[in-house]
Amino acid sequence: MINAYAVNNPREPLQKISYDPGILEKDQVEIDVKYCGICHSDLSMMNNDWGISQYPLVPGHEVTGIISQVGESVTHLKVGQAVGLGWHSAFCGSCNHCSEGDHNLCGSAQGTIVAHHGGFADKVRAQANSVVPIPDGLDLSKVGPLFCGGITVFNPLVQYNIPPTAKVAVIGIGGLGHLALQFLNAWGCEVTAFTSSESKKQEALTLGAHHTLNSRDAEEIEKAAGSFDLIISTVNVKLDWELYINTLKAKGRLHFVGATLEPIEVQAFSLIMSQRSISGSPVGSPATIAKMLDFAKIHNIEAQVEIFPMSKANEAIAHLESGQARYRVVLEN
Amino acid sequence: MINAYAVNNPREPLQKISYDPGILEKDQVEIDVKYCGICHSDLSMMNNDWGISQYPLVPGHEVTGIISQVGESVTHLKVGQAVGLGWHSAFCGSCNHCSEGDHNLCGSAQGTIVAHHGGFADKVRAQANSVVPIPDGLDLSKVGPLFCGGITVFNPLVQYNIPPTAKVAVIGIGGLGHLALQFLNAWGCEVTAFTSSESKKQEALTLGAHHTLNSRDAEEIEKAAGSFDLIISTVNVKLDWELYINTLKAKGRLHFVGATLEPIEVQAFSLIMSQRSISGSPVGSPATIAKMLDFAKIHNIEAQVEIFPMSKANEAIAHLESGQARYRVVLEN
Repeated sequence: MINAYAVNNPREPLQKISYDPGILEKDQVEIDVKYCGICHSDLSMMNNDWGISQYPLVPGHEVTGIISQVGESVTHLKVGQAVGLGWHSAFCGSCNHCSEGDHNLCGSAQGTIVAHHGGFADKVRAQANSVVPIPDGLDLSKVGPLFCGGITVFNPLVQYNIPPTAKVAVIGIGGLGHLALQFLNAWGCEVTAFTSSESKKQEALTLGAHHTLNSRDAEEIEKAAGSFDLIISTVNVKLDWELYINTLKAKGRLHFVGATLEPIEVQAFSLIMSQRSISGSPVGSPATIAKMLDFAKIHNIEAQVEIFPMSKANEAIAHLESGQARYRVVLEN
Repeated sequence: MINAYAVNNPREPLQKISYDPGILEKDQVEIDVKYCGICHSDLSMMNNDWGISQYPLVPGHEVTGIISQVGESVTHLKVGQAVGLGWHSAFCGSCNHCSEGDHNLCGSAQGTIVAHHGGFADKVRAQANSVVPIPDGLDLSKVGPLFCGGITVFNPLVQYNIPPTAKVAVIGIGGLGHLALQFLNAWGCEVTAFTSSESKKQEALTLGAHHTLNSRDAEEIEKAAGSFDLIISTVNVKLDWELYINTLKAKGRLHFVGATLEPIEVQAFSLIMSQRSISGSPVGSPATIAKMLDFAKIHNIEAQVEIFPMSKANEAIAHLESGQARYRVVLEN
């Protein structure tokens, strides 16, 4: 039996449950969960904000732990190995996207917490191909958030071949943004943080930003016209996007990883005259996660975490919802 | 003196004028205009739709002709040479964009019909670096429209390294779209034309489309979900862009070369879940125009034109405004 924390209905607290995971499939592994980060998408799924939740729902998709069992056809992972598990816990393995290495775009991919029980538990199972070994020397308590928040901001740098000469801005310095600043600084870029909070301004500079801009000061943003090759937006609220698009250089890109539910409005002329793009992306593939972990190791990049015991998962969620988390809340078994 | 046709105020007919162009600058050439295409942006400029028109305004920025004079420092062009002139008639030559070969994005570029007299004339002048030689064998009466309409749809293929394996759709089969279909077919792509007109459907297939979709049939478009790597939109009206975005594959791009004045609305989720982009671009650089002309020559690509004498410019414009042009109206001296 697996012991876990689940919600039974939207906006209810987590409760202890046990479930029988059945026989381990031959392509699966079982992980002893050591730590599990809490992502905003856990809250969205717990509350059924996206209309795809199935209850009881066990959240948790930023898992680090130790493999406790491997299925009979798994040859590349071993019991006792440290691994992580992110948003996806299985891929079809045969569609065009999987064939091309873009498993994260697989239309049949299994979400770790979508009709599948996640990492707020003592154990979690996943297809071996969705699990990524953690390089020696990385701290399991701090690397979990890289498996969703981290890869989400790292992946665009890989996808769009962002060069170290690029000038890059990040909107929103939270769970994702605080990792983006660290990655971009190590990537060699000149980094600007858009942030509304004076307290986060200093922290943004410490995390790797070379400059900050006040996201509530339209005049300050207007003055930055034509500055950036890339802006990564991690926020899930509507901003005056036209204002931000005008801070892009020619050929610049405004890239969304935060899912604002209100439509994005943009003037065709703002795109056409300067050959600009707007785009979005989800998490990355296991191969890109592995690259990210190597990059994080060599550059000493890790999430800034606040650790709660798994038994206090409800308190941990309340702390995240309060907006006070600096920067990622992690549960520990 | 140069004899030209100009408008003196928005929405007035063209009238004959003569103007003294002064001494030829040492970096300029003078062109005996043989043909000049009429682009929708000539109408927009004649009517001051974009608020940047200066009167009297001589339209015309799809010029083909023969060099009649070269400035003293011009060494790469000769009197008697066949050349074309498009949207830009001068570049600063020293900004980052010019240095990188992206003259078309130069912030100080001179528009051929923006505070400068264009090609509805017996002669037109331009900086030698903005003029592109026309390869032997191309028909001057049919190549003018490539210098604005053609390069506008050709340039994205170069900018985004579109591979011949791409599946590409074109929205709007008019002056730009009829060239896009020809270029894309020769580029090796599988080509789909979105068109609302039954009469254009057959023509689109003749021009190079492998398939057509009815742009007024939402159900037909919904069925095409996930089909295209690239959509080039040449229209300047607002469509249900979300419907078109959903016809893109993962990593697909909806690219605007038609300047719709109403904002484009797009859902962040539609971009994020499938790593899609929306973007825009203006005309191309002289170097890309030269590449396009070589490509057009080897593949026998030319504009389908209806030729009017320059003296009937007003009738020609009325024909264009009627929506009956198939596909580009060209004035002949």
